[in-house]
Amino acid sequence: MTVTEPKPRYKYVGTRPVRHDGLEKVTGRARFAADLNMSGQLHGIVVRSPHAHARIVSIDTAAAEAMPGVKAVITGDDFPAVDSSDRNYDMCVNVVARDKVFYEGHAVAAVAASTGDQARAAAAAVVVTYDVLPAVLTIDEALAPGAPVLHDHMMTSGANPPAEEPSNISDITRFADGDVDAGFADADLIIEREYTTVPVHQGYIEPHACVADTGQDGHTTIWCSSQGHFNVRSSTATLLGWETTRIRVIPAEIGGGFGGKTTIYLEPLAVALSAKAGRPVKMVMTRDEVFRATGPAPGTKLRVKLGSDRDGNLVAGDAYLIYSGGAYAGPGGLLGAMTVFESYKIPNFNVEALNVVVNTARSAAYRAPAAPLTAFAVETVLDEIATELGIDPIDLRLKNAVTEGDPSTMGFPLARVGFIECLEAVRDHPNYNAPLGPNQGRGVAAGYWFNIGESSSATVNLNEDGTATVVTGSPDIGGSRASMALMAAEELGIDPYDIRPVVGDTEAVGFTDVTEGSRATFATGMAVVEACRKMVVELRGRAAKMMGVEVDDIDWVDGQAVYTGSDGEKDPLPVAAITAKAKRTGGPLTATGSLEAHGAGPGFAVHVCDLEVDPETGVVRILRYTASQDAGTAIHPSYVEGQIQGGVAQGVGWALNEEYIYDSDGVMENPSFLDYRVPVASDLPMIDAIIVEVPNPAHPYGVRGVGETGIVPPIPAVANAIYNATGCRIRDLPMSPIRVLDAITSAGGSNGSNGA
Amino acid sequence: MTVTEPKPRYKYVGTRPVRHDGLEKVTGRARFAADLNMSGQLHGIVVRSPHAHARIVSIDTAAAEAMPGVKAVITGDDFPAVDSSDRNYDMCVNVVARDKVFYEGHAVAAVAASTGDQARAAAAAVVVTYDVLPAVLTIDEALAPGAPVLHDHMMTSGANPPAEEPSNISDITRFADGDVDAGFADADLIIEREYTTVPVHQGYIEPHACVADTGQDGHTTIWCSSQGHFNVRSSTATLLGWETTRIRVIPAEIGGGFGGKTTIYLEPLAVALSAKAGRPVKMVMTRDEVFRATGPAPGTKLRVKLGSDRDGNLVAGDAYLIYSGGAYAGPGGLLGAMTVFESYKIPNFNVEALNVVVNTARSAAYRAPAAPLTAFAVETVLDEIATELGIDPIDLRLKNAVTEGDPSTMGFPLARVGFIECLEAVRDHPNYNAPLGPNQGRGVAAGYWFNIGESSSATVNLNEDGTATVVTGSPDIGGSRASMALMAAEELGIDPYDIRPVVGDTEAVGFTDVTEGSRATFATGMAVVEACRKMVVELRGRAAKMMGVEVDDIDWVDGQAVYTGSDGEKDPLPVAAITAKAKRTGGPLTATGSLEAHGAGPGFAVHVCDLEVDPETGVVRILRYTASQDAGTAIHPSYVEGQIQGGVAQGVGWALNEEYIYDSDGVMENPSFLDYRVPVASDLPMIDAIIVEVPNPAHPYGVRGVGETGIVPPIPAVANAIYNATGCRIRDLPMSPIRVLDAITSAGGSNGSNGA
Repeated sequence: MTVTEPKPRYKYVGTRPVRHDGLEKVTGRARFAADLNMSGQLHGIVVRSPHAHARIVSIDTAAAEAMPGVKAVITGDDFPAVDSSDRNYDMCVNVVARDKVFYEGHAVAAVAASTGDQARAAAAAVVVTYDVLPAVLTIDEALAPGAPVLHDHMMTSGANPPAEEPSNISDITRFADGDVDAGFADADLIIEREYTTVPVHQGYIEPHACVADTGQDGHTTIWCSSQGHFNVRSSTATLLGWETTRIRVIPAEIGGGFGGKTTIYLEPLAVALSAKAGRPVKMVMTRDEVFRATGPAPGTKLRVKLGSDRDGNLVAGDAYLIYSGGAYAGPGGLLGAMTVFESYKIPNFNVEALNVVVNTARSAAYRAPAAPLTAFAVETVLDEIATELGIDPIDLRLKNAVTEGDPSTMGFPLARVGFIECLEAVRDHPNYNAPLGPNQGRGVAAGYWFNIGESSSATVNLNEDGTATVVTGSPDIGGSRASMALMAAEELGIDPYDIRPVVGDTEAVGFTDVTEGSRATFATGMAVVEACRKMVVELRGRAAKMMGVEVDDIDWVDGQAVYTGSDGEKDPLPVAAITAKAKRTGGPLTATGSLEAHGAGPGFAVHVCDLEVDPETGVVRILRYTASQDAGTAIHPSYVEGQIQGGVAQGVGWALNEEYIYDSDGVMENPSFLDYRVPVASDLPMIDAIIVEVPNPAHPYGVRGVGETGIVPPIPAVANAIYNATGCRIRDLPMSPIRVLDAITSAGGSNGSNGA
Repeated sequence: MTVTEPKPRYKYVGTRPVRHDGLEKVTGRARFAADLNMSGQLHGIVVRSPHAHARIVSIDTAAAEAMPGVKAVITGDDFPAVDSSDRNYDMCVNVVARDKVFYEGHAVAAVAASTGDQARAAAAAVVVTYDVLPAVLTIDEALAPGAPVLHDHMMTSGANPPAEEPSNISDITRFADGDVDAGFADADLIIEREYTTVPVHQGYIEPHACVADTGQDGHTTIWCSSQGHFNVRSSTATLLGWETTRIRVIPAEIGGGFGGKTTIYLEPLAVALSAKAGRPVKMVMTRDEVFRATGPAPGTKLRVKLGSDRDGNLVAGDAYLIYSGGAYAGPGGLLGAMTVFESYKIPNFNVEALNVVVNTARSAAYRAPAAPLTAFAVETVLDEIATELGIDPIDLRLKNAVTEGDPSTMGFPLARVGFIECLEAVRDHPNYNAPLGPNQGRGVAAGYWFNIGESSSATVNLNEDGTATVVTGSPDIGGSRASMALMAAEELGIDPYDIRPVVGDTEAVGFTDVTEGSRATFATGMAVVEACRKMVVELRGRAAKMMGVEVDDIDWVDGQAVYTGSDGEKDPLPVAAITAKAKRTGGPLTATGSLEAHGAGPGFAVHVCDLEVDPETGVVRILRYTASQDAGTAIHPSYVEGQIQGGVAQGVGWALNEEYIYDSDGVMENPSFLDYRVPVASDLPMIDAIIVEVPNPAHPYGVRGVGETGIVPPIPAVANAIYNATGCRIRDLPMSPIRVLDAITSAGGSNGSNGA
């Protein structure tokens, strides 16, 4: 671990206790959504469209309803109508189709029966009559003149002049600064490249699952795995047209989400089935369903052009980015536009980004959404500039890296960030000069993610014996319980193991937004700190009462109330002494923090990938991987390292192997982990994570989000390393063996700087 | 309903909405403790002592452990040793015996196996070798010279001179005021009577049950039915020697408690079995076990002497009260001493109360513990005085009733109480002059209970759509969720049905004491009001931000923020308008209240029982029952009426039929609802409940507890009515047919004032 600024000397923050939820998880006792079974529960199965694009002519459920064990069948008609102008329209009609289906796997009905087999049989007996429509499956098909239009109401927003007819372009985002033409005219070197990428899935191990139990009083309880149970509540309420107070959502442990569990699929169906059947209903997706019907990251077509002077100073940039959000508009275009040039000082730039709809599953967020792909383009063009100019790729980035005060793409000045420190940390690491052998190459790439704040709540309750419970509303995806306990321990001055960090359900804690945007440790941590500081005020007051002194004469020092007044010596009172007397000094000790967090510090990362290409097969083997990242302050360094390593692992998979493969009708051909190849342990070396700590001034402990940035650099780092090994630039994902082999073969054999 | 003081005109408080948990309960979907089943759960069975008093020589578990399906066997050795000087000693050794067993049914070991049958078989195979000791089963036996002493360490506390040897008297309480001898010397009429009563059970429908799931990380979750899950947590922690933070207790719905679920029996056994087996363990008592091994109300021997002048003014009182707490010391003596003379102005009194231990199940709280029995004595002596002096029994009580400022038995001045108003309400009710026929009689009695405050916590969360969640830590025994919602609705100005009242688990809300002492609506209601008032301050602040005005210019009126400043008209902002913008005005809206409540207002009740005695069989039939009670303010009048009616029903059962019957070895002979006769619906008429409202000045809505007082007057009211019908005074409970028939026969036939 490299620390580039002096580390504050905290007692607990920055230590590495075993996570509170660790033993339960490694012993298999932690309860994920599919682990819950209720007495009398039914099994729910979704009826899905076999067509990528079709009008629903009719749905006949009579045969299914008559089958053994069937207790309820629902269709879109069981939900309130939703207008296409409603901001929740896409979510609503994605959960259950109304008049049209937009992708193979789109939910059209659902069945609940006593057993899974009965439900599956009944689902197969639901007769849906479709009027099959021509499908558009790629960005090119979607944009082709005369292309079938998916949504009659889709008038491109942001179009200039305004759109007059519906199209498959949902929106256009533009950012610009300076004079781009003049900038390129002044450039000594201009490189412009085009890229294509296809959808990839988040690949979480745990499929979507839930149990819903709806009573005759119109209230329901949902147990499910999600990144945000308050969002499950509000989204389910929206779909059903219910008040939120009728819905309680209890979070199960989550077996991975990576953005893919920020939205909902099954929950409203389970609630509606349960309401109709009068029984609890459990629904668990198969892996096949997860692939076909839950959100992958968008596919893209990207064009990036950068101009530099002869010293490597960037003078102009132009980006044209197309993201396919699947069947409905996604956030890809906006996020791509926000991130593509954010890492570098480029005085003149122009960015235009489109979101396009196609007849594939609706895309969902995936770890730093859109940014890994814009990084793929920008960071490989930069690599070409470095090569052309003979500048070390890290030096090139050091020349151009943004620092505090530089304007962001959207014009706001940057707060203190650690990009330079991350570049220096990698440059100074011994790995950067490790020798490479034949067919081996080294690639450098940087990555940026802005991180977000949003709403968080926390409650701190002190127990009679001086132990504490810290309740937050943030599902624990990457060790946040441990982080919350460490911050609370630091504030209260008690041992982290005497604190029970809990993820509270929607009735147990104040509103909390989704665990996304790398916000949990930052924003929810702020809420925990706020609650703890209120608690310390209360503890000082109670101690003053017990000592019979003024509260202003009580300091809180290392978990004890210490008398600082002039009325002689008094024994300090530790937490347990105060809680033991709480009934006599005012009652239970409880405090809450609720806030809308601002000032999420942007995260930067710099990766160096060393790999070897087998020139006979095109297989790429990662030899060594070094990743630095600015964590602001690492509350629990092990989980920061874990986030960095996890981001690298997913990014390498995205770079080398992962892809959705569709047949000509839009049917996914590889919906299993056998055919959709994610990296396994044997595919990767131990990843060297370097934590850089440049504290975020907006957070009481200097935290900035760490969950997403790590997935941004791997694709270009791998691509640059493949070039370094083979001399071939590959600009289409994945860089699978066959594609690498094709590139080598087309170039007449491997001829990288380290080629044989 | 009679209202004797002008009723405050609240919008929601005092209305009668359907309780939020009602439909779930009447449709059978509410989940009580035994309704929970976990995958992989084991079944736990307790091995119980067949002897009333014995030394445990050895416990051999080997055969049991070798039986099919058995996963764990535990004994007292699996728990930390506890010293007899520890204040939790009685509870600890009652849950699982250590070296001695003190009653038939005392837990000595427990077994967990895959099925209930396997567990029962294994429990039978645990070989316990006992050295049987002579048992003491009655108060007389316990006090007899040379009686076997149960506890070698029991030195009577409060003895004067101090005890020099251990005995079966655990403690003596004395209260006195004035000059008792002089008082009796001045009296024109002195009546002194002796009474005996036997243990009766609370008779809750739901047996004790729990599921515990203990992980390898040493944390456990307990689902159980109790009157206080924080108490289950702390008691279980005490027994196991654990930090409270290792235990989470999730409250199930409770199927009756009446004081009997203020303590624990199964939970530590289930946790220990689960820890040993590595699996969840479910334990459910049979009715037989509930009777044999959980706390009945104590049996008593009472002697009460009252002196009056010729006008019926009481001048002196003397009481000697003995309570048998079962195998361990109970609170009966103290509570009896506190309540015996509390209702009346008696210038000279002397009270002495003893707690005695005997070899029967450890007694537990039962609705106004001890008070129904002291009332039995005092209120029947008063009836004799009224008869002797020819004064109407209500007029006699009106002459002597305590009012505001009168000193209590313990010397504190009474706050404003509604005893006089309750007497007047009954006197003025048409039932009081309804004609009576042959063999019919009317009895009057009053009752008092002091009620308590203790610690309560509440959290109010406002949801995005303006609905609210109100979380408290008080199990809902008698409709408290509805009461909490009504108070919150009144404070916030939103509809009670837009509020979700929730009983939060030990990790979801601040520390809250047991639902006992009629404290929930009083104390937890105060916490709810405190939280809501904080929320209104917050809402006014948010509204001021939205309007761009000073918060001091915002009033909260009927659920809306109303601008009162001079800067023109502004549209008021309802809750939903403020919650919808919460993210822009500071984040989630959450508020907590936590307090130690003081000023629980004492509750008074006056009952009139009309009944008919069958002179051939001694069977008593209740004809008409009229019960007035001071509720302070009835938050939800239906549930106040329910509490009054429930108290009467239980009191009538106690008066007429209920009793523990032991054989000569101390084995209970009637441990089932067939042989232990509680009143059923056909035994009782509709009870006329009269709510009197004399607001409690210490509560924001004037609430005083209503749950317990209603069980205090029935026993003497029935006894006085039997006298009125037959001319026979019965001073031993129960007044069962055979005892009534014996009394009539001994007196030479029925000769009451209404006798044939």
